[in-house]
Amino acid sequence: MNVTEEIRSMGEKARAAGRELAKLGSRKKNAILESMAAAIDESRKGIRDANGRDMEAARAAGLSDAMMDRLQLTDARLDGIVDAVRKLEELPDPVGQQLSQWQRPNGLEIRKVRVPIGVIGMIYEARPNVTVDAAALCFKTSNAVILRGGREALQSNMALTEALRRGGERSGMPADAVQLITTTDYAAVTELVRLEGLVDLVIPRGGEKLIRAVAEQARVPVIKHYKGICHVYVDAAADQTMALDIVENAKCSRPGVCNACEKVLVDRTIAKEFLPKLAERLGARGVELRGDEEARNVVPAMKAATEADWDEEYLDLVLAVRTVEGAGEAIEWINRHGSHHSDSVVTEDEAVKERFCAEVDSACVYTNASTRFTDGGEFGMGAEIGISTDKLHARGPMGLEELTTYKYIVTGTGQIR
Amino acid sequence: MNVTEEIRSMGEKARAAGRELAKLGSRKKNAILESMAAAIDESRKGIRDANGRDMEAARAAGLSDAMMDRLQLTDARLDGIVDAVRKLEELPDPVGQQLSQWQRPNGLEIRKVRVPIGVIGMIYEARPNVTVDAAALCFKTSNAVILRGGREALQSNMALTEALRRGGERSGMPADAVQLITTTDYAAVTELVRLEGLVDLVIPRGGEKLIRAVAEQARVPVIKHYKGICHVYVDAAADQTMALDIVENAKCSRPGVCNACEKVLVDRTIAKEFLPKLAERLGARGVELRGDEEARNVVPAMKAATEADWDEEYLDLVLAVRTVEGAGEAIEWINRHGSHHSDSVVTEDEAVKERFCAEVDSACVYTNASTRFTDGGEFGMGAEIGISTDKLHARGPMGLEELTTYKYIVTGTGQIR
Repeated sequence: MNVTEEIRSMGEKARAAGRELAKLGSRKKNAILESMAAAIDESRKGIRDANGRDMEAARAAGLSDAMMDRLQLTDARLDGIVDAVRKLEELPDPVGQQLSQWQRPNGLEIRKVRVPIGVIGMIYEARPNVTVDAAALCFKTSNAVILRGGREALQSNMALTEALRRGGERSGMPADAVQLITTTDYAAVTELVRLEGLVDLVIPRGGEKLIRAVAEQARVPVIKHYKGICHVYVDAAADQTMALDIVENAKCSRPGVCNACEKVLVDRTIAKEFLPKLAERLGARGVELRGDEEARNVVPAMKAATEADWDEEYLDLVLAVRTVEGAGEAIEWINRHGSHHSDSVVTEDEAVKERFCAEVDSACVYTNASTRFTDGGEFGMGAEIGISTDKLHARGPMGLEELTTYKYIVTGTGQIR
Repeated sequence: MNVTEEIRSMGEKARAAGRELAKLGSRKKNAILESMAAAIDESRKGIRDANGRDMEAARAAGLSDAMMDRLQLTDARLDGIVDAVRKLEELPDPVGQQLSQWQRPNGLEIRKVRVPIGVIGMIYEARPNVTVDAAALCFKTSNAVILRGGREALQSNMALTEALRRGGERSGMPADAVQLITTTDYAAVTELVRLEGLVDLVIPRGGEKLIRAVAEQARVPVIKHYKGICHVYVDAAADQTMALDIVENAKCSRPGVCNACEKVLVDRTIAKEFLPKLAERLGARGVELRGDEEARNVVPAMKAATEADWDEEYLDLVLAVRTVEGAGEAIEWINRHGSHHSDSVVTEDEAVKERFCAEVDSACVYTNASTRFTDGGEFGMGAEIGISTDKLHARGPMGLEELTTYKYIVTGTGQIR
């Protein structure tokens, strides 16, 4: 079987499994999730052995320490993985939920009801925990999933998937509800994202390069974010102490993630007062500041920002700082240079808050809070399969509801048109 | 300016106009819609002259009578066009609507609010009324629109767009909220559907060939339906008189539309009783029946259906008829051969109704009603920009709400993570 046939065959099996999943009730699904969790728990030795082989190969291939760290499955991380599956059992099942209902003058009753999307393709990079997270989230919402992880994690992902399938089957899950692509041939990804009619949605997670390649090749819908260029705008009417806390947190609490702040815009009128404090606060945290000319006039120690700085996602302890002419210029700048992910204004001025929230075209717009809250868990969704900066279907953090679609069920008594 | 530059420039103008539209309130937008309606009303002569030139060219090019009829703008049709715009004024504006709101334990207040999608590309065929419908629907939801109609209707579409822009501007609409692509170069379509970052959604409407071409070239999200292969399944427990009425209506009331019935499945146990009545009823309406072997054993006058018949959208007075082994086989058949558009079961058996509605994977699933009700107007949406058989974002008839997305507005008091 060549790659094309192999992936198509996986798609067909997933579609068939999806039809069976749609018939499972919430209680049954939770029992299956519990079996999955238990199977991972009892397969720790095999999973850690497999992970050891991945780690060895990674070391031989000269992967960076950061990559190695992401790849490693310690016992504590396995605890976390098992706990995450169990936590899903407690969350409400969105499938079957009635979104609205109305009756037409001719007596037709129309109900709009949440249903599974069907078959989801998940393409991701090194962290093996995504294998379990994605499988469990898709299963909880009665979707079949086809997983394609990074080649560095192949042995780990195979061991985890084997446990998930074995555990799931024990409680009545159709095994093909969870499938892992094991070929490392990149053609498998291209085939997967073109399986119109068999794959309903592809979610890529990883670096911008991976996501762009998927989006360009795809024929099926893709939900994604390329990057997070998040701004904090410090308005003239800001509580500056609050602004310092928010910028420090948004920049430093975890600089490598997509909701970290990459740029600060400061109202020109407070630049002289605010920027030295900012430089001091962030300097103490080891952050490199890159400023526009005006900012450097105030804090000459800042590096000069180049044009490229305004569109770059550093994912590091680097922050670009720019002065602007009030909220209007800040909004325009963010809409032009941001990534429509998460942007925040710090201000005590209600009119500025309102304008910023109305006009900034981002998935999540904040007033007086850190951009780091853009996260399914922090939003209270209980789980997250990804973050979308697309505008269609799902925007912002994607939890269980975002893994469903709806259908209309129309009940008649013989109505004709 | 070449086509690439021209389309990109239109995209940039649309994006800028969209930002302005997002600031307009509902009352202002309704005043603008009224100006649009008035401008079309007062420009009838110019519009009909332009339409006359299209008709003449179409006649010279040898277009079919059906195509000519779709192209023609009579005074009555212009009345309809003007009325449709005015009707939109009365519909509620979904933009700004709060979808949900909650507070997190840390005090963050999260609001999920409907916002415009941004810039919508609309690609369609001969009917010039789509120009006005699409422009008005997009405008009502604060979206900028780039229209690309069929070349046969170019003069008519130009005259209509000119009136829409002139009328809209009179009441304060940014003119580029409505733009028409006037080059007939097909490259314009390819450019439009690849304008990532400038076009947020493309809606193609027309024949399957047009839609497939758009979907294959697109880099931006597309919402579409390729075709409507709608089924009526007549169950063993059907009220057969009702079934005859429903099939006749679903097949004959307007055979050329996507929600018309193309296939009837009949439970084997009632085939001998039901099929002769069906043949008689539809024969009287001039419908050609094509049956499987079992159906032809009962009604030998039926033509034999070929394998291709089960996947074909006739859009004509032709109906394929197949016997099945109960609801289970009917559901499986519909999921395999249908187009996930609209499918109906006729039965008095509650268990069959429930199973059919749960398991048929279509946008609209009916019990005891004609598939012809799949329509924004019939659903009570007041308007329709298209019908989706996709599962993401919008499924089934798409009205005003489906032309919006949402954003999260998060209000803090200095929260950091």
